[in-house]
Amino acid sequence: MRKPSVPKGTRDFLPGTMRKRNYIFGVIRDVFERYGYQPIETPATEHLDTLTGKYGEEGDRLIFKILSRGDKLRKAIAAGSDSALSEEALRYDLTVPFARFTVQHQNDLTFPFRRYQIQPVWRADRPQKGRYREFYQCDADVVGTGSLRCEAEFVRIFDEVFTALGIPVDIRINNRKLLSAVASSVGAPERMTELVTAMDKLDKLPLERVKDELRQKEFSEEALTALERILASAARGDAASGVPDALAELLGEFPEGKKGLEELQYIFSKTDKPGLATARLRFDLSLARGLNYYTGAIFEVVPRTDAQVGSICGGGRYDDLTGIFGMPDMSGVGISFGADRIYDLLEAVGGFPEKETEGTTVLFVNFGEAEGDYCAERVHALRAEGIKAELYPDAVKMKKQMKYADDLNIAFTVLAGEDEIRRSVLKVKQMKTGVQEEIPEAELGKYIKNI
Amino acid sequence: MRKPSVPKGTRDFLPGTMRKRNYIFGVIRDVFERYGYQPIETPATEHLDTLTGKYGEEGDRLIFKILSRGDKLRKAIAAGSDSALSEEALRYDLTVPFARFTVQHQNDLTFPFRRYQIQPVWRADRPQKGRYREFYQCDADVVGTGSLRCEAEFVRIFDEVFTALGIPVDIRINNRKLLSAVASSVGAPERMTELVTAMDKLDKLPLERVKDELRQKEFSEEALTALERILASAARGDAASGVPDALAELLGEFPEGKKGLEELQYIFSKTDKPGLATARLRFDLSLARGLNYYTGAIFEVVPRTDAQVGSICGGGRYDDLTGIFGMPDMSGVGISFGADRIYDLLEAVGGFPEKETEGTTVLFVNFGEAEGDYCAERVHALRAEGIKAELYPDAVKMKKQMKYADDLNIAFTVLAGEDEIRRSVLKVKQMKTGVQEEIPEAELGKYIKNI
Repeated sequence: MRKPSVPKGTRDFLPGTMRKRNYIFGVIRDVFERYGYQPIETPATEHLDTLTGKYGEEGDRLIFKILSRGDKLRKAIAAGSDSALSEEALRYDLTVPFARFTVQHQNDLTFPFRRYQIQPVWRADRPQKGRYREFYQCDADVVGTGSLRCEAEFVRIFDEVFTALGIPVDIRINNRKLLSAVASSVGAPERMTELVTAMDKLDKLPLERVKDELRQKEFSEEALTALERILASAARGDAASGVPDALAELLGEFPEGKKGLEELQYIFSKTDKPGLATARLRFDLSLARGLNYYTGAIFEVVPRTDAQVGSICGGGRYDDLTGIFGMPDMSGVGISFGADRIYDLLEAVGGFPEKETEGTTVLFVNFGEAEGDYCAERVHALRAEGIKAELYPDAVKMKKQMKYADDLNIAFTVLAGEDEIRRSVLKVKQMKTGVQEEIPEAELGKYIKNI
Repeated sequence: MRKPSVPKGTRDFLPGTMRKRNYIFGVIRDVFERYGYQPIETPATEHLDTLTGKYGEEGDRLIFKILSRGDKLRKAIAAGSDSALSEEALRYDLTVPFARFTVQHQNDLTFPFRRYQIQPVWRADRPQKGRYREFYQCDADVVGTGSLRCEAEFVRIFDEVFTALGIPVDIRINNRKLLSAVASSVGAPERMTELVTAMDKLDKLPLERVKDELRQKEFSEEALTALERILASAARGDAASGVPDALAELLGEFPEGKKGLEELQYIFSKTDKPGLATARLRFDLSLARGLNYYTGAIFEVVPRTDAQVGSICGGGRYDDLTGIFGMPDMSGVGISFGADRIYDLLEAVGGFPEKETEGTTVLFVNFGEAEGDYCAERVHALRAEGIKAELYPDAVKMKKQMKYADDLNIAFTVLAGEDEIRRSVLKVKQMKTGVQEEIPEAELGKYIKNI
């Protein structure tokens, strides 16, 4: 028998990790709910043709497929074709299933429809540090409205979540329409993708290198000069906020540029009063996630730390999410939290609050049958007060029971021998400090709650 | 394009359903946690050989397999063999993954280990009413102790959960060792399974028919007479509680019978003081779930209603959960809640509490840009008080906005036009009663919370 293990790229979550993950999901869920987002779930599997063609060629290759069964499988094998071997697949993200869901249930939903969804997705990616084949996505979307108030609310949602988690963040914002205007202003309106890809490299490469690359792609010198002027006026970096005037002037002469500027301006104005608690909203012309997908605002959230963790959230406005399933013109905005990265970040800085991630609070030591019965009633009373409590199930050596409490990080142990039981008191030990006190049995719950 | 749909036997959960399901899971999770059970999760996929051979031949056929990719797939197709097409599979239950988990992480776990796990499982069953190909299981197990206090605690867990959910239940209990003693006492110790299967039919068939069946299987007349005596003394039915004396006398002369009686007696005595809140613990000799698996106590929970919903929980003691993965003698007890059946039951009697399953509480009607800005600040203030609130994103017709509130079952709508804003008051309408009041803007949160 080989050693038990999980499939490559997947993970077991042990209790300590689970509680921390649940804490993160709980914070996000609470904010989503207060903002009117409603929970939904979709099945782990979708019809294969619901997913294929939605994530590009590379994405299609990474979809986990379910093997057909019975007659279908036999026929597929006989035919020797791999395309017939599977008709269902594991979901690859939450967006395409949500689009399918929206179209399928359009008559049962009320629009604008705000939904959130926290479920695992599966991708047959090459596993590496921080990248898994099974991971949770944590999405909120509102569809059926073009109101820019939704974008402004998502900025507030980011602010509330990361304020609650104690992570200072920059919310980077851009607008797809501005990127179109950049392409127009360098005289290559149809080459936006190449331009944006090049701009994106400015983080790592000097301007001249990037210009050389564009020259090789046969961008004209005029185009490069125009681009350089735009970059100079875009004033990227942490200090930037709002759209710089010089850039607004350059891009505002193009219709899509004007529209994009107005949209950005509106979102900035709506998050101004009341201001954000700890997050900072920053314009960033180089931000360009999911180009072929988003049509308006684009978001990315990065922690304000030295650690190079990259973005921990993304999102944006799309004008046609459900068109692929035959329901056109359904505009929406969505955001997604990267739970694994947020976890790593909090773990690195010791940012998980003890209270909310602790397991059992009280362990009663088991001294034998009669003492055990007495303690079982006390345990029952504590649980009724909402306190997590257990009686060690066997009357084994005290040392073993105390080690159990230590290993599980249990805050209090309670000892009740014959003598204590006769006097209706309990010996309570605070495991962290070693402080030991005698408490009247009726006051145990109050004592625990007050420490 | 075909109409968007989900794979056969799977479901989307819309917000109303999700909130009710989350309510059920929340109640169960809260009780598990107060009893010291700790959350874990395992991946959706397992190595195929972790699962095969664990659920019987029929079970093996119902496992969803993941299609291999790349070279492996090409080789498998070339070989024309279906066994090479897959190396991973979707989990079929939570028990086998938990056994694998326990063995794999034995050095990181502290025993006795109490875990709970609430995750979906997948079975390629023929879908039918109330039976799905994807459904959640909701399990708690404690492993690494033979203490019968664990069984007694599970009885209390059933009691607490169903008291909280408002479902009166009978907890049926039996002991696998008593069933062994039945077989011994009819002189056929090796034929327990056949006897139990026959006894199980007494719900539906008259005694004589069942005896005829056993005759055909060549049970002797002496055996049948002995069995009849046992059945007469077992006094099955709702009125029974504890093990009837006459039955105890008949089965107590066999070592396994004596042991089984002692175990049952112990569990009854430990759930006596304090007594159960609403559940009733009932001995039932005909109870025999998972025969080849359980070794001690066996549980089943059935609602005390006229509705024929069958059991909504099961569980029992097993002496060797992890032996299949090379870690022998790890005794444990586990229980499992059937979330779908509990859902149907609560739905049928209108048993879901309104408060805990409601969505947005307050909708602010959007009258235009300036009013919207004013309301957005009020919404923000309500959310900070923990109230779920939204501003309708667009200034569309009032009728449409009120219909939105109606459709989403939103309890309050707030109207603030120019006049109200000038006077710092808000018009609040209670949607259920139609009552409309004018509230000072600073008191809105208090007003909402007090109704």
